[in-house]
Amino acid sequence: MMNPEKLILETPYGTRDLLPRDAAEMRHMENMLSSLFRSWGYDEVVTPTIEHLETLAPRVQEENSLFMLLGNQNKILALRNEMTTPIARLVSSRLKDAPVPLKLSYIGNVFRVEQTQMGRQCEFHQAGVELMGSERPAADAEIVSLAIASVLACGIKDFQIHMGQVDFLDGLLSYFEIDEQCQREIKSAIERHNFVLMDSLIDALPLSEQDRGMLKELPLLNGREELLRRLYDFPRNEQSRRAIDNLAEIYALLKSYGVADYVRFDLGIIRDFNYYTGMVFEGYSPGLGFPLCGGGRYDRLLTEYGHPMSATGFALGMERILLTLDRQGIQIPSVSRDVYIGYAEQSIGEAIRRAMELRQTGKIVELGLKGQSYEEAESSREARGYAALEYFQ
Amino acid sequence: MMNPEKLILETPYGTRDLLPRDAAEMRHMENMLSSLFRSWGYDEVVTPTIEHLETLAPRVQEENSLFMLLGNQNKILALRNEMTTPIARLVSSRLKDAPVPLKLSYIGNVFRVEQTQMGRQCEFHQAGVELMGSERPAADAEIVSLAIASVLACGIKDFQIHMGQVDFLDGLLSYFEIDEQCQREIKSAIERHNFVLMDSLIDALPLSEQDRGMLKELPLLNGREELLRRLYDFPRNEQSRRAIDNLAEIYALLKSYGVADYVRFDLGIIRDFNYYTGMVFEGYSPGLGFPLCGGGRYDRLLTEYGHPMSATGFALGMERILLTLDRQGIQIPSVSRDVYIGYAEQSIGEAIRRAMELRQTGKIVELGLKGQSYEEAESSREARGYAALEYFQ
Repeated sequence: MMNPEKLILETPYGTRDLLPRDAAEMRHMENMLSSLFRSWGYDEVVTPTIEHLETLAPRVQEENSLFMLLGNQNKILALRNEMTTPIARLVSSRLKDAPVPLKLSYIGNVFRVEQTQMGRQCEFHQAGVELMGSERPAADAEIVSLAIASVLACGIKDFQIHMGQVDFLDGLLSYFEIDEQCQREIKSAIERHNFVLMDSLIDALPLSEQDRGMLKELPLLNGREELLRRLYDFPRNEQSRRAIDNLAEIYALLKSYGVADYVRFDLGIIRDFNYYTGMVFEGYSPGLGFPLCGGGRYDRLLTEYGHPMSATGFALGMERILLTLDRQGIQIPSVSRDVYIGYAEQSIGEAIRRAMELRQTGKIVELGLKGQSYEEAESSREARGYAALEYFQ
Repeated sequence: MMNPEKLILETPYGTRDLLPRDAAEMRHMENMLSSLFRSWGYDEVVTPTIEHLETLAPRVQEENSLFMLLGNQNKILALRNEMTTPIARLVSSRLKDAPVPLKLSYIGNVFRVEQTQMGRQCEFHQAGVELMGSERPAADAEIVSLAIASVLACGIKDFQIHMGQVDFLDGLLSYFEIDEQCQREIKSAIERHNFVLMDSLIDALPLSEQDRGMLKELPLLNGREELLRRLYDFPRNEQSRRAIDNLAEIYALLKSYGVADYVRFDLGIIRDFNYYTGMVFEGYSPGLGFPLCGGGRYDRLLTEYGHPMSATGFALGMERILLTLDRQGIQIPSVSRDVYIGYAEQSIGEAIRRAMELRQTGKIVELGLKGQSYEEAESSREARGYAALEYFQ
């Protein structure tokens, strides 16, 4: 048993407090991303932290990964586990008559019941965008480019976007006439990078040794532009061929955006939500075993809300960005503290008026809370990290 | 029974989506308040949305007003219902060795199970500050002044701060030797503005007609500086006399801050949390039946976390501010949309490069997602509200 008196001083498992330095970095990043998304024409929306379980559950692979709670009239509610589903709900209801394409952004916290580890918490913050109402590669290229611009704007220079296409694997699996259940198992093994399981699933298939080898190789395919040409050599149906064409078109546009150097093809990228239907991507920085950002095309999700519309988007993990900046030794510029105002007790009125005057000009000013000698005020200034002292005798 | 297909399109009872216009106002207000708090020397902190039930429960008057959920190892958790308690927890744990006074700010969402009405939701956003480690009136005056500066910065000019002092009533109740249970009942009636109940409780007390009349009058006492002088005429013990002295000292400092005109005394202000110990206040705007902001001194709360320290602070209800701005017809400056870029299909590369160039200069730019004629592009520009069109043939 845990001591309850100790418990009241702790945050729940998988959650944490951000002390001033981290909170300031988070605020800085939030402002910066909010401006960036706006400058690309995306409008911010805010959805509730709580959703009806029915809204979130169909998109969740592991049911017990949602934090559930009881709402009004005993309805079962859940804390949102990601932002794309709530935004799909919003677009299918209050925004269903809005002109397309819809370009929406968000910055918010999401919740998942899970075993925590470095870079993985039960509550964390995501920033991202959704571009709805366009099936064009130009939309996907905009999304990938904005994801790259976001990571760069956060101060991270050393990272790679790994881009895949879920239709390529789906096309091959259909081509080999593999049944749906087995397709799901293979994809789930790939997603969890469990290649031993994947190999054993593929070994059980009634295919030639050569075809099995090809399937096993697929999630390991990883390279730059030359890989695209190799992909055309894979046995393929219309679906898998179109998937390669789609990647080629997106890549050509990424060259125009000047960001192609950040991108490599990685056919092992599947993503951990079951709603992706086309191009998918994840961003990685060296030495970190989890993606900084990820996204892709999800053309069927909005159909489930009665509002069919093609869509693409990405999300960025803000705690993961902060962790990467920290590990790479990159400093976010810290807030300057300008003036500490000290005063002898009888001069408090004058000190107050001066503090108000300086704050009006944008200065960061701390006013002492009691009368001090000049020496005491100078030592407060130093202890509290202010650049200048003003003292009223 | 509600149709589950309908349910997935709705937000839970007492929560709502913020569409782009409202979300932009919220973002604007958040940035503005964050800068304001910083310019007064307050450091932002972020605490988890979820707390252990043990952390929040002792400060909650109605137990079933918390949203509860089950965490790791079946610990009972709750969504935070306000921010002062989580910050007291943080200060008593990870910040317990930080130099005082501690000046902390927050902007976050809080949750309460309740019957919703205009200005009252189950999920809403609060911004505020806590000043810990000073028992001086100068600290209270700083808090009241910063609350006033915050409401003004949000664009609301027409409001009043109602300031009271819980020790004045407590002193009188002790003076009349009223037992604790009855004191609690009287205070609860005052807090709920149930003056019929209050009168009947007071009528049952073994007091002279004159003393009863005086007690009944107390929560209705409301006025400017002249009221302070009248208060000294009330029968009083040391505690109630010191409460009046304290209000007088704070008021003198508010004059130095140049904000005394926004303040009136209101001895009926009790506040709905049970942790206040001194000066308390609430801000009201005409025609709105709920406070925009509120706060006060809470010198005993931190003791409950094993870290005795005097403290004062305030919180501002962001949805209530937005509602007030809306009712008073005050517009927050909206975001300008600068340039829509259209292009003939073959010129997409050129269009992309121009969009990136303009965004670098801080312009808000939407890039078309498919080739358009000039006329189509012009009509997109207009439909999407951009000031200028650039077109690439």
